[in-house]
Amino acid sequence: MPHLVLYYTANLEHDIDIPPLCRALADTMLEIRDENGAAVFPVGGVRVLAYPAAHHAVADGGKAGLEQAHAFSHGAGDYAFIYLNLRMGRGRSAQTHQRIGTALETTLKNTFTPLLEKRPIGVTFQIDEGPEVFDMKLSSLHPLFKKGS
Amino acid sequence: MPHLVLYYTANLEHDIDIPPLCRALADTMLEIRDENGAAVFPVGGVRVLAYPAAHHAVADGGKAGLEQAHAFSHGAGDYAFIYLNLRMGRGRSAQTHQRIGTALETTLKNTFTPLLEKRPIGVTFQIDEGPEVFDMKLSSLHPLFKKGS
Amino acid sequence: MPHLVLYYTANLEHDIDIPPLCRALADTMLEIRDENGAAVFPVGGVRVLAYPAAHHAVADGGKAGLEQAHAFSHGAGDYAFIYLNLRMGRGRSAQTHQRIGTALETTLKNTFTPLLEKRPIGVTFQIDEGPEVFDMKLSSLHPLFKKGS
Repeated sequence: MPHLVLYYTANLEHDIDIPPLCRALADTMLEIRDENGAAVFPVGGVRVLAYPAAHHAVADGGKAGLEQAHAFSHGAGDYAFIYLNLRMGRGRSAQTHQRIGTALETTLKNTFTPLLEKRPIGVTFQIDEGPEVFDMKLSSLHPLFKKGS
Repeated sequence: MPHLVLYYTANLEHDIDIPPLCRALADTMLEIRDENGAAVFPVGGVRVLAYPAAHHAVADGGKAGLEQAHAFSHGAGDYAFIYLNLRMGRGRSAQTHQRIGTALETTLKNTFTPLLEKRPIGVTFQIDEGPEVFDMKLSSLHPLFKKGS
Repeated sequence: MPHLVLYYTANLEHDIDIPPLCRALADTMLEIRDENGAAVFPVGGVRVLAYPAAHHAVADGGKAGLEQAHAFSHGAGDYAFIYLNLRMGRGRSAQTHQRIGTALETTLKNTFTPLLEKRPIGVTFQIDEGPEVFDMKLSSLHPLFKKGS
């Protein structure tokens, strides 16, 4: 924890290079500081996983986009969608949630705002606090960063 | 939001054509009305994403099915499973949840009931209200339908 | 229900054979007993689905691992990560959650502990009780085991 999972329509890969987006999101997570200036997430705990869907259906399937195709440069009838879910541990303050959210929102806007004008696309990003009733971790990642700091 | 995600054993693709199922589920979501006759979901917010698993293990791995192979036309020892999760915003009434659930249940039964007799298969569909502590949306999809209506 | 979903960096497949891991996890779930010695999960309800990510970013992207490459046999700069989430129905006791968790933890340690020393890897396993507001099941799997018992 925390981990950020990207679920998206595979047609998004025509326009967005996903590996650098994953890296930019991870870097943003690494940089987030809380109200006291401390890193919110431990380096070894930052994970971003991206999953293009094998199949999808979005909205009306493209009809409205095709009717307004003049407003887009491409993909007017081939809607794209990405859902990003960040799951993190319980107990951080609402202020910290807001800091995390707005930092990642900025990174997402850098990537997606230019694309929004070109093709019909939906971006949703949400943060959940995990409601887990059992939690287990094994790691040879975390020690790398304890040694280093 | 809302989005409906399908997680399933890849062997299901032998029997079910997943893209039309995604479309049928999206169309059902578009048609659902609340107690006052208003559409429950905005057109631009309806998304269905389908993910066949790369690997899976179900129940006893096929033993019981093979022992009762006479009861099935195929796949007796090759169990299939699909889990559908609809995540939507908080605040709708229990009655609306029920309407959404039963509408999608009908669509699922149309597709899966005939298959249940042919091969061992499990279908689970659940609706969650998102517990998010941060929520962000960007969209050039929604405006398509505001213009159009 | 219950279902266990594995989300992981695809580089894990170099070291771990995922199908037998899925089977071992399912077998563990089948063997778990509650405080009264009864099976916690019905045979036909046990499902494990595994999803390698198409793309990922973990921690600092490999820098710290490369600097400490002498400590690993391979993959020092190519971090691996797996997240396992078990979602099950509400209403079981905290003691039962603990039994389920520790049983699966043992299976996970059997697989991952030897690997932890070889390459930088993170393993997180969590159990959630489903917060669903609607729940539907169709199954020709469950009857196989009712007949058999």
